[in-house]
Amino acid sequence: MIEQRQLGKSTWVFSNEVRLLSSAAVVGPMEGEGNLADSFDLIYNDLYAGQETWEKAERKMLEDVVGKVIEKAHLTADEIDLYLAGDLLNQNITSSFSAKSMQIPFLGVYGACSTSMLSLSLASVLVDGGYANHVIAGVSSHNCTAERQFRYPTEYGGQKPDTAQWTVTGAGAGLVGKGTRGPRITHATMGTVTDLGIKNPFDMGSAMAPAAAKTIQTHFEDTGRTPKDYDLIVTGDLANVGLPITRELLEKEGYRLGEQFQDCGLMIYHAKQPTFAGGSGCACSAVVTYGHLMKQMEKGDYHRILVVATGALLSPVSVQQGESIPCIAHAISFENDG
Amino acid sequence: MIEQRQLGKSTWVFSNEVRLLSSAAVVGPMEGEGNLADSFDLIYNDLYAGQETWEKAERKMLEDVVGKVIEKAHLTADEIDLYLAGDLLNQNITSSFSAKSMQIPFLGVYGACSTSMLSLSLASVLVDGGYANHVIAGVSSHNCTAERQFRYPTEYGGQKPDTAQWTVTGAGAGLVGKGTRGPRITHATMGTVTDLGIKNPFDMGSAMAPAAAKTIQTHFEDTGRTPKDYDLIVTGDLANVGLPITRELLEKEGYRLGEQFQDCGLMIYHAKQPTFAGGSGCACSAVVTYGHLMKQMEKGDYHRILVVATGALLSPVSVQQGESIPCIAHAISFENDG
Repeated sequence: MIEQRQLGKSTWVFSNEVRLLSSAAVVGPMEGEGNLADSFDLIYNDLYAGQETWEKAERKMLEDVVGKVIEKAHLTADEIDLYLAGDLLNQNITSSFSAKSMQIPFLGVYGACSTSMLSLSLASVLVDGGYANHVIAGVSSHNCTAERQFRYPTEYGGQKPDTAQWTVTGAGAGLVGKGTRGPRITHATMGTVTDLGIKNPFDMGSAMAPAAAKTIQTHFEDTGRTPKDYDLIVTGDLANVGLPITRELLEKEGYRLGEQFQDCGLMIYHAKQPTFAGGSGCACSAVVTYGHLMKQMEKGDYHRILVVATGALLSPVSVQQGESIPCIAHAISFENDG
Repeated sequence: MIEQRQLGKSTWVFSNEVRLLSSAAVVGPMEGEGNLADSFDLIYNDLYAGQETWEKAERKMLEDVVGKVIEKAHLTADEIDLYLAGDLLNQNITSSFSAKSMQIPFLGVYGACSTSMLSLSLASVLVDGGYANHVIAGVSSHNCTAERQFRYPTEYGGQKPDTAQWTVTGAGAGLVGKGTRGPRITHATMGTVTDLGIKNPFDMGSAMAPAAAKTIQTHFEDTGRTPKDYDLIVTGDLANVGLPITRELLEKEGYRLGEQFQDCGLMIYHAKQPTFAGGSGCACSAVVTYGHLMKQMEKGDYHRILVVATGALLSPVSVQQGESIPCIAHAISFENDG
């Protein structure tokens, strides 16, 4: 008899032994001057990270963070069965090229900025189900590679409205395995694509808010939990436009979230840093979760948290063709023993 | 006690009940004039499929094929737990936008042309492990969207060498569930990124050949099988340049493959069609597998086959920056009862 592993359509339940054995986060210089500077394993002095191009710098960051996560778990690359990764660049090149240097079987995933929890959810399934012993989930983003790909060449210096967000430069990774140490990964709730018709690529917070609200509501319905079961519910990159909208949408559904409801995009930078509405990018939820939040859990500041990574699934072509922005959010519940 | 679900690092074993409950394939006009025309569920008369843009046409094809695969399994969309999909367009927009119209929890995956078997492998894990009852794996590609994104605007009419390949227009999908009918999905072998330094994006067959050979060899090593255990071993889109190289590489490793070793990119078009070295694209292995091969299995022409989907993980940016082409291949073993 197999234990129950599915709640509702969208939520997976993992056995007690599935844990984040280690996690690591590396960031660029601006993130290294933010609120969470002490949480990161490495802060690069400049955006090139010693490489010739920004694309290679982003790759170096992802390779570095994967090296760190293996080292922190006291394992070797040989002991890793699978590497799941995704990023924002066309054709996921940061991830694919990093997999080339590692020589670990590789599965590419893509969920825009929700990729952090998408990759970790699948990693947890593979370990929980007995398909792999050790799986790494990794993501990256880089302000300069994202800007020139999604918006304008960085050198152009285009103006932006206050609703715009700042792509986080960095990479985060988590190593999933069975064990007795590290926070348990207990549930993953997979999102449905939600699109309420917002077309402005400089206001992704508003576009993503309904997707975040929907995944949080689904998580509560599938698990029977309520906001008070969590010490912290944190979205990926809704920033100061999207977070209040999500709060309001959930309140309408009867879920009142207080101070325990926060956003990685608002946590990472100081208010005085010129980051518009807040941080975004795959690395935003990843470096905050794998850097800061896991350290807080280790210290015992939180017993149980829900990380809801949010993604705007647009492309420059879809925007140019007048399409609205489909969004998605994937959530993972982390829990300390006891 | 959990049954053994992992062989070596890279191969997953599925229980006897995991099956392809239904499969479907839709194609563009050129594929509808090829060798396998009778295998497809729908042939569009033109490349726009009644839409305003090629991107929307590609999306329509993916939506149509998912509708067909649900209908052929005598299910409704409500009974599908998860939809896994990927395509070649930047930010996977075909897949994401198709998920928006379906409202089924969605996981985006990316492995270039290997996405067909990557998505089906993960779908099989989710069903086998008890995380979902019915999962759809779908992919698409479109000659005109791919050409203008990866190479030149189609209207430019750039010349190509004989080693170039022709991106297949179409979409394929498989519906995985537990049951007693349909071919069993018994094993999936996940690939490692392989890159022998080839930089020519007009010769992807040569670039992908070593990745295909490596995954096939790993599959034999992990499972203890040999070529004679398969009635057919078919690669995704190595075409007439890559297939002989893979054959030679495997022969050097002691695996002699005869007439049973074929390539979807060589099967789909007539020799007289102007497709250079043969077909490519996510849809190439997908429409041949989900259309033609599954019909052959149903007729009893094959008892056991191995589909090895091959992917070139390049992007125009990586090519312009002088990088070589990292490649990967993911393989699935299908088997009839008895």
